[in-house]
Amino acid sequence: MSRIWNFSAGPATLPLPALKRAQAEFLDWDGAGMSVLEASHRSKEYDQVHNEAANSFRELLGLDDDFAVLFLQGGASTQFAMLPMNFLPAGGSADYINTGAWSKKALAEAKMLGVAREAGTAGPEFTRVVREGEMDLDPNAAYVHITSNNTIKGTQYYDFPDCGSVPLVGDMSSDFLWQPFDANRFHMIYAGAQKNIGPAGVTVVLIRKSWLETANQAIPTMLRYGTHEEKNSLYNTPPTFTIYMVRNVLDWVKGEGGLPAMEKRNREKGDLLYSAIEGHGDFYRCPVDEASRSYMNVVFRLPTEELEAKFVAEAKSAGLSGLKGHRSVGGCRASIYNAMELAGVEALTGFMDQFVRNNG
Amino acid sequence: MSRIWNFSAGPATLPLPALKRAQAEFLDWDGAGMSVLEASHRSKEYDQVHNEAANSFRELLGLDDDFAVLFLQGGASTQFAMLPMNFLPAGGSADYINTGAWSKKALAEAKMLGVAREAGTAGPEFTRVVREGEMDLDPNAAYVHITSNNTIKGTQYYDFPDCGSVPLVGDMSSDFLWQPFDANRFHMIYAGAQKNIGPAGVTVVLIRKSWLETANQAIPTMLRYGTHEEKNSLYNTPPTFTIYMVRNVLDWVKGEGGLPAMEKRNREKGDLLYSAIEGHGDFYRCPVDEASRSYMNVVFRLPTEELEAKFVAEAKSAGLSGLKGHRSVGGCRASIYNAMELAGVEALTGFMDQFVRNNG
Repeated sequence: MSRIWNFSAGPATLPLPALKRAQAEFLDWDGAGMSVLEASHRSKEYDQVHNEAANSFRELLGLDDDFAVLFLQGGASTQFAMLPMNFLPAGGSADYINTGAWSKKALAEAKMLGVAREAGTAGPEFTRVVREGEMDLDPNAAYVHITSNNTIKGTQYYDFPDCGSVPLVGDMSSDFLWQPFDANRFHMIYAGAQKNIGPAGVTVVLIRKSWLETANQAIPTMLRYGTHEEKNSLYNTPPTFTIYMVRNVLDWVKGEGGLPAMEKRNREKGDLLYSAIEGHGDFYRCPVDEASRSYMNVVFRLPTEELEAKFVAEAKSAGLSGLKGHRSVGGCRASIYNAMELAGVEALTGFMDQFVRNNG
Repeated sequence: MSRIWNFSAGPATLPLPALKRAQAEFLDWDGAGMSVLEASHRSKEYDQVHNEAANSFRELLGLDDDFAVLFLQGGASTQFAMLPMNFLPAGGSADYINTGAWSKKALAEAKMLGVAREAGTAGPEFTRVVREGEMDLDPNAAYVHITSNNTIKGTQYYDFPDCGSVPLVGDMSSDFLWQPFDANRFHMIYAGAQKNIGPAGVTVVLIRKSWLETANQAIPTMLRYGTHEEKNSLYNTPPTFTIYMVRNVLDWVKGEGGLPAMEKRNREKGDLLYSAIEGHGDFYRCPVDEASRSYMNVVFRLPTEELEAKFVAEAKSAGLSGLKGHRSVGGCRASIYNAMELAGVEALTGFMDQFVRNNG
């Protein structure tokens, strides 16, 4: 088997042990004589996996007892609508911090469904995050929404601003579990799985049960968080295999040493890659402010678009795939989520050295 | 490997060749050096799988060009809301044919979102489907909604009633592709994958593009069918692996000879099982009217609940799992979807013979 280094922004590389575990028991899961794909979502066997996955989130983040862990479908894009439908009352207003494309989409959806304000922006360039002092927060807002990492522009919050007593909601789709953080400061966190925690097809929602009591009930059943909280995400058939894979990924995270180990691993990789970008004069250039550079999605430019295209193509031939920047901004991007190994980033920086020698 | 016979109602048994294909390339998909779970949804490789799956539906059903094939998330339960949100205008009314639990849920959701009528019912027992002459259809209805198969009560339409010129919408979650049928009579068909066409986590929606032009636009982005039609179900990240598995299952269906072969296989299995139920005096009893008996979910009773519990437990020990009836009705149920082999039903009927000898 020859595995390439996959720098895709998501769906993205997964931990090899989590994949191998699934492959080994793909036809006969844990002695059940069937694949996990074929197991009833009402079976004892599946129930155990489902709860193991939920409990791993509790354990890794030290969640307090007020939190429910939900497994929903429809991606973060569906959360952009569910959040205001549940928590933006008529006559109320919500604050959104705008750090780029995904924040904008979340805000636009909220505006379609109620009153929402941009309470801080990193625009028009979005080459940094918005700091606490730059925010214009409404103390009466229904909630504050923040995007922890921007995959397109390559920016990230390392710490979260203090938004006062207003409920804080985080879209952490692209950097969830990259390092330890105080999840208990939030009222809700959501993350599409397909970057840091599993394959595409499930969205993890951590939500305060006490907040759920204030949610709007007059919305479709499947769009009420309460529906899923009451039934432990088994109101209808959940994406069982995808949740099983998330369980496998979280078991790998725990086996590696949990979130402190993820942080160490991610900082090593990111620091190495940013050093390589800075280390060749002005051949490579990262457009992001140093204090906002993402440890998940490292964006960089080369002297010309022609060289960028050549870089991406030659890297692919060398077994380094997915390095093309998002189509809306161009350039190059290396997504180095939890599962990317240091050896992969070393291979990339080695290739970058060579590419400068040949083209610099 | 010892594979059991899995009679679960869904998630359910899948064709072994479709599973083996996935297992074989689980770590190195088609020479890509990565798992299909890790491939970008924007990659050429994934795009091919995505379109193959959609085109297989077109091919198997002979869909006319007006149909879009969509891959959505959230299960049939989310369709219960999306359908009226998109197609039940203020001032309009929709007709629902009530053939049991799932029809009732669909109707209740529509009533929450607008005006909807029960235009025919098989209640209170639901041991049969509703025939054309029993329906009270509104010629001005926004649409008529029908559930093709009821997993809980074990009833099924073999042919669809003529609902006149009103757009016909079918929830075919539990028997989609069980036999050839004229899909072009419908305006929309939806099916959660986890019974007949794949694992849990994707819902296939076939919808007329001409009907989409009349849809309500003032609803959340992810709940507009148009959003997904415009982007070929790639507006956001789809559940890529689940769609890949659906592709594998459809390739298996085509390899077996398509829908005529599925019908032959399913009728053989169903006829054998219903014969076994009838063939032991009144020890086994099917409560469903003969003309409405499902070829997907075969429900039956034994003389006492104690014997039913014993039957389910001993069957499980004999490698026949998932035979307990739905918790709302009790009894026994054998789900024998497309992927269940005739040998599995033979094993079940053999066990039934033995059980009568020991307990009759």
